[in-house]
Amino acid sequence: MGDGEERWLTPEQQHAWKKFISVVELLPGVLDTQLQRDADLTHFEYFTLAMLSEAPNRTLRMTALASLTNATLPRLSHVATRLEKRGYLERSPCPEDRRATNALLTEAGFEKVRTTAPGHVSTVLANVIDPLTPADISDLDRIMGRMLGELDPNDRFQAKNE
Amino acid sequence: MGDGEERWLTPEQQHAWKKFISVVELLPGVLDTQLQRDADLTHFEYFTLAMLSEAPNRTLRMTALASLTNATLPRLSHVATRLEKRGYLERSPCPEDRRATNALLTEAGFEKVRTTAPGHVSTVLANVIDPLTPADISDLDRIMGRMLGELDPNDRFQAKNE
Repeated sequence: MGDGEERWLTPEQQHAWKKFISVVELLPGVLDTQLQRDADLTHFEYFTLAMLSEAPNRTLRMTALASLTNATLPRLSHVATRLEKRGYLERSPCPEDRRATNALLTEAGFEKVRTTAPGHVSTVLANVIDPLTPADISDLDRIMGRMLGELDPNDRFQAKNE
Repeated sequence: MGDGEERWLTPEQQHAWKKFISVVELLPGVLDTQLQRDADLTHFEYFTLAMLSEAPNRTLRMTALASLTNATLPRLSHVATRLEKRGYLERSPCPEDRRATNALLTEAGFEKVRTTAPGHVSTVLANVIDPLTPADISDLDRIMGRMLGELDPNDRFQAKNE
């Protein structure tokens, strides 16, 4: 990280940072590889469908879905178009607010989540959860919550509040 | 995460996982945004230059540089071509093994790291390090080391050994 960073991060911080950034770079590829191989979905596409599968009536406003998936609305809209073409998702004006748009998980979309979840969960368990002790899980929750306080200062995304 | 995952992750694991995956999705954008705005570099390009800046004679074999940057050799080669065009890096056959290729940080490349480091370090401190206590740093180091044991089982990348 150059001379500058070595002056400004302590050796302990430097070591933790290098491990952390390695995980941040490696994990998305591992998640995407399994999902694309087994379900022809990116992790973001799967996560979008999965969030809808947990919502009441399998329906969410696009703004709420963007918040749940840590995405901007333009990014989510782009992915929703792809998922719509594959028959997993439908968009329609929100009955309570015609300016807003709802996303609905179709029956085919729900089935896709149901059949895809086990393989994805196995990947998460094997790479992230199983190597950790219960104390590690609790530490991870606390540490990531603190980082989200900076990365998402306006509470735009929802994981922090879980 | 679908019905399947909720059966297989405990609520504590689910909460920690959702926060963690949010950080994994948000952090790269924050790092890239600052570096592209202030230095016209992606985080991966900066990290590549920074790793070379710390090496003896500012030179590394491409295979060693790939290991340090958590990258495959094809991905690194692609980025090295871009950095070479901008005058920050030069490649040449390795004198000890003509089949291997060395990457050398040029004087312009070193100067680029020197002027870019402070802004990048500030971003890392503000979003990752400063929200954490010394105990959090030590926990983060331990937890990420355990995940890397799965994500990088063959020790291809080097952060785990720091």
